[in-house]
Amino acid sequence: MKVLIVYAHENPASFNGAMKDTAVEVLTAQGHEVQVSDLYAQGFNPVGGKHDFTELSGAEFYKYQAEQVAAGRSGTFATDVQAEMDKLVWADLVLFQFPLWWFHLPAILKGWMDRVLASGFAYGNGQMFDRGKLAGKRAACAITTGGPAAFYPDLAETLKPIMFGILYFTGLQVLPPFGAHAPAQADDATRTQMLADYRAHVEQLASAEPLQYPTMAEMGMG
Amino acid sequence: MKVLIVYAHENPASFNGAMKDTAVEVLTAQGHEVQVSDLYAQGFNPVGGKHDFTELSGAEFYKYQAEQVAAGRSGTFATDVQAEMDKLVWADLVLFQFPLWWFHLPAILKGWMDRVLASGFAYGNGQMFDRGKLAGKRAACAITTGGPAAFYPDLAETLKPIMFGILYFTGLQVLPPFGAHAPAQADDATRTQMLADYRAHVEQLASAEPLQYPTMAEMGMG
Repeated sequence: MKVLIVYAHENPASFNGAMKDTAVEVLTAQGHEVQVSDLYAQGFNPVGGKHDFTELSGAEFYKYQAEQVAAGRSGTFATDVQAEMDKLVWADLVLFQFPLWWFHLPAILKGWMDRVLASGFAYGNGQMFDRGKLAGKRAACAITTGGPAAFYPDLAETLKPIMFGILYFTGLQVLPPFGAHAPAQADDATRTQMLADYRAHVEQLASAEPLQYPTMAEMGMG
Repeated sequence: MKVLIVYAHENPASFNGAMKDTAVEVLTAQGHEVQVSDLYAQGFNPVGGKHDFTELSGAEFYKYQAEQVAAGRSGTFATDVQAEMDKLVWADLVLFQFPLWWFHLPAILKGWMDRVLASGFAYGNGQMFDRGKLAGKRAACAITTGGPAAFYPDLAETLKPIMFGILYFTGLQVLPPFGAHAPAQADDATRTQMLADYRAHVEQLASAEPLQYPTMAEMGMG
């Protein structure tokens, strides 16, 4: 497999950073090719705007999503956006690794979704969900939380706005998520165990079964 | 009332921009004081990180949320974060005005939540939901969508991750939301009607009843 890890934690010495390092190590040892988008280290700009494009379409009215469609046709995405798209096209599996902030993505990663999963590139013209433009690829989320596990009794449900509303919307098949809960409050033994659990989780990613989300037809979308 | 409008659209000529202008006009005409945080115009940086603080706490291990708590105690938030906090403290009502991107906040506004609704300032030490630190203030969301109204049959449910998971988490009482659907696809007459509908919506904000979300006690959180 070709695996892209999109990693969104500021501190390389964090537990989240250790999880990312573990994932790289395990996947590489299994013989997979791995690339990492380290968004903080890259200084990734999460703000979607005119700077996403090397030139504008010339439309009388500037509309961001319309410019995304135009840029996809003319190959005029800015370098930082295009580089992430290229990695996404390359990848068979995309592993999103982030701390859960406000039950959702940290802004730096939300902006990766806003800018890279562009209209016309990841979805559009009726192509979404099982017919999304990234169909055939797989994705998984691995998170750390500030709160204890009891706050998140059903992690796939907590992450559904991301896993279903964003990732599956683009056609990605989404694997079950992994959560490491409150590592900052845990003792060393617990942290070591959580990291071992994550190692075992990553080891089975290549053969994991995706969650069964409904197709467009099943959702009555034709 | 003192009203803070947090506005997150790149294009002042957009329908979202027209909604913001309408809200300012109506609220001012009603005698309320209005401030606008125009995040794109301000060049607001949505990435939470060390730059949020004028100095670090000196803790051996750097952890963002712990630094937020420390900065609240020592008054060492960076100017851009502190300025938004000051407006929030000033406000009786906060109106969030944004285009819905991936069923959630555009990154520039998600980062406003990440950085401004800081641990220790907006919540913390068991103070959340009805006991959140912003209790006594009210908030409302007004959005534009790319998709038609049929995509969002229950807007309060679509926005629940934001309205409940973020705003109410800090103690804000959340008013019913307003959605203008697919204005980019609508004809002028429809857009004019949607803007009139929004005008009427803003006119009743001062007397609107908040949504009834459960208290901590009702959620079994003691």
